[in-house]
Amino acid sequence: MQFSPLVDELVSALRCLPGVGPKSAQRMALHILQRNREGGMRLSNSMAKAIEGVGNCQSCRLLSDAEICSICASSRRDRDLICVVEHPADVAAIEQSGSYRGLYFILMGHLSPLDGIGPQQIGVDLLVRRVRDEQISEVILATNATIEGEATAHYIVDQLRGIQLHGTAVKVTRIAQGVPLGGELEFIDGGTLLHAFAGRRALE
Amino acid sequence: MQFSPLVDELVSALRCLPGVGPKSAQRMALHILQRNREGGMRLSNSMAKAIEGVGNCQSCRLLSDAEICSICASSRRDRDLICVVEHPADVAAIEQSGSYRGLYFILMGHLSPLDGIGPQQIGVDLLVRRVRDEQISEVILATNATIEGEATAHYIVDQLRGIQLHGTAVKVTRIAQGVPLGGELEFIDGGTLLHAFAGRRALE
Repeated sequence: MQFSPLVDELVSALRCLPGVGPKSAQRMALHILQRNREGGMRLSNSMAKAIEGVGNCQSCRLLSDAEICSICASSRRDRDLICVVEHPADVAAIEQSGSYRGLYFILMGHLSPLDGIGPQQIGVDLLVRRVRDEQISEVILATNATIEGEATAHYIVDQLRGIQLHGTAVKVTRIAQGVPLGGELEFIDGGTLLHAFAGRRALE
Repeated sequence: MQFSPLVDELVSALRCLPGVGPKSAQRMALHILQRNREGGMRLSNSMAKAIEGVGNCQSCRLLSDAEICSICASSRRDRDLICVVEHPADVAAIEQSGSYRGLYFILMGHLSPLDGIGPQQIGVDLLVRRVRDEQISEVILATNATIEGEATAHYIVDQLRGIQLHGTAVKVTRIAQGVPLGGELEFIDGGTLLHAFAGRRALE
């Protein structure tokens, strides 16, 4: 339904948010205008400020207000390790799990030649330079367990081959693939089971 | 995870939207900042403009840029009928169904004395004045089929009692309650079945 030009424009603009269809956009617009204009104004301001002020960390490419993000600038991180991920949201997931205390490198995507995304776009040269210059001892590849993520990981391994630290090659590892926590074998796909068997470990 | 002050502020501001929890808010913020800054800027602008420019129609209380909304101003509507609904979204649903061509009156809620919402807040006096002044022949009560909606409808019936048009009392009707289209009796609740039986009609 057409309410009025300004309301309709707001409904249409809300659809730029991921997962928001016409129905949700209308519900959001009416909710803001009827019940929470203050919250809407705050959202409008913080959105404009973030779009103007947030760039990428010059070291790891994470979204950041400053030239160097808080993780890269922290003195409490293990500076020998770099974990390579596809998206900032992956960093959020890893940080929340508390499983890693090193640095990051964010590709902001994966190799996808058909979409014009090559090594340059995902910053592989920047990563290689960092590994060489910062004397990194281990690069952990944590790209997604998808075909594109695997292909990207393989490409990066090739590029890192030959970089040496104190005479030994830089260690490049890939996060483990297998049955997720709470996973019931009955419902797990064949590909995952294949990885789970191939990556089995001796119990001590 | 804390990204940076500006990103965190945006994530927190996005939670003013209905149905958006912490995970969705983070996904929305990252999507805007990584992939659609243009759309985000447009959203920020149209949100601010709508909040500043959209008020309520002085006649029916629908959200509107102008003093009188497009429905009230239209010459193609049946000006003898007023349909009373709780929210602007209800108007959207009725308009989309194409089942009604009269005017509206939006209560912007329902009677809820515990929350301090009385007849004054839902504009019953404005409605009564309109029915009297505009020579309305029928008022259709389309408040929700909830306890609060029913109570509100009953209150409005009482207030409209005694208003006369050309010597006869104004007709006040309530939309029908019963089995919804596609409803299977097996899964329909007792209250709805009660209404469906009580409101049965003779087949011609």
